[in-house]
Amino acid sequence: MTGRVDIIGIGPGDEALITPDVRAVLDQATDAVGYIPYVERVAGPGLRLHPSDNRVELDRARHALQMALQGQRVAVVSSGDPGVFAMASAVFEALETWPEAQGVEIAVHPGITAMLAASATLGAPLGHDFCCINLSDNLKPWSLIERRLRLAAEADFAMAFYNPRSASRPEGFAKVLEVLLASGCSERLISFARNVSRPDQSLRTLPLKEATPEMADMRTLVILGNSATRRVGRWVYSPRSA
Amino acid sequence: MTGRVDIIGIGPGDEALITPDVRAVLDQATDAVGYIPYVERVAGPGLRLHPSDNRVELDRARHALQMALQGQRVAVVSSGDPGVFAMASAVFEALETWPEAQGVEIAVHPGITAMLAASATLGAPLGHDFCCINLSDNLKPWSLIERRLRLAAEADFAMAFYNPRSASRPEGFAKVLEVLLASGCSERLISFARNVSRPDQSLRTLPLKEATPEMADMRTLVILGNSATRRVGRWVYSPRSA
Repeated sequence: MTGRVDIIGIGPGDEALITPDVRAVLDQATDAVGYIPYVERVAGPGLRLHPSDNRVELDRARHALQMALQGQRVAVVSSGDPGVFAMASAVFEALETWPEAQGVEIAVHPGITAMLAASATLGAPLGHDFCCINLSDNLKPWSLIERRLRLAAEADFAMAFYNPRSASRPEGFAKVLEVLLASGCSERLISFARNVSRPDQSLRTLPLKEATPEMADMRTLVILGNSATRRVGRWVYSPRSA
Repeated sequence: MTGRVDIIGIGPGDEALITPDVRAVLDQATDAVGYIPYVERVAGPGLRLHPSDNRVELDRARHALQMALQGQRVAVVSSGDPGVFAMASAVFEALETWPEAQGVEIAVHPGITAMLAASATLGAPLGHDFCCINLSDNLKPWSLIERRLRLAAEADFAMAFYNPRSASRPEGFAKVLEVLLASGCSERLISFARNVSRPDQSLRTLPLKEATPEMADMRTLVILGNSATRRVGRWVYSPRSA
């Protein structure tokens, strides 16, 4: 049997948001690697699970390629979309330094990333130009995050923030709010969408100047509107012309 | 029967990228409104189709709300994701000026937007912070597009461009390339992904300085990498630490 690696995104949590394309991969796979809670979501008969901890993405990617070289059909599992702050980049990083693995057949399968699910649940806050920033400073310096926040505010982009606040670095999101306030965003609407598409989903929208750091945790997707983003009834949306 | 409006995204073209959530909406809907080619994709028994031309989004949104007020279950159909440069914002705009319609039950259902499908097909060019810009100047001034391009280049965001080049305004994308060249992006990789996930899909990646305007049309999703985006084998990816 020829091995292969399929890098899949299983969406934000609701089973009905997993594409048939990804289901077909899981039906064919022999092995699944990924962060523990994501691998648990795809458990099924005939699929060997290889859960691993957070922050070992590169090791996990190498493990997947290794198994494929041995003839296994490996699903590399991310939540959301595999190309947005998830496993696809890690697999290509691993491939870059491992010429022997470059013959492995690979495919990337898109999924519903958290910002799209959050945006849909809120209304349409990403209905106009926006940017998408990973607030984790595990792999990049805080100074780069700060510079991107200032420039994105100046450009009047709506912004989607991933990984806003980790238990180990809770002060990061407080600094993010400070930078945004100092960049003229105090009146903009900010939305906190926690556990989107899951039974315990919660949503909260308020002006940035009233937001506090503890409104976000690592299960929260944060969306800051642009200067025209507003409410209609229970919805939050960005008009098409801003 | 109580009417409702479901705003759905049917992905970039491949049927296997339509979520079960959206399929369930289509199974229940009585009516579907949308741009002609998108409505054609959802045709089925028992579903009345109301195709309309491009650029009449607000009229279409009002029509959907009107039918829902009359008790119909209306699917508002966008390609990709309904919240990314698509119909969700138009429905909320229509709702804002029509208090009588504000009691209509509405839900937004996410879909695989073109940039996620293009990114997956290319590798992982959006694997780090990025922005997403609609290059159509139908609804916003060119000066705003230009300002956002300059600031996004300065922030070293990867960029996904929707609607790069219309038949009626072919000069716009040439100006975009000029602004990006003048903003220090000449060595960055740019990818043109046309008809992603369809049988006639085509991909092309090259340094920005070698790109020409006719490489894009309205069926092309364009992704500009950040300064670290690179190739490994046939893939294009942005490392996680840039």
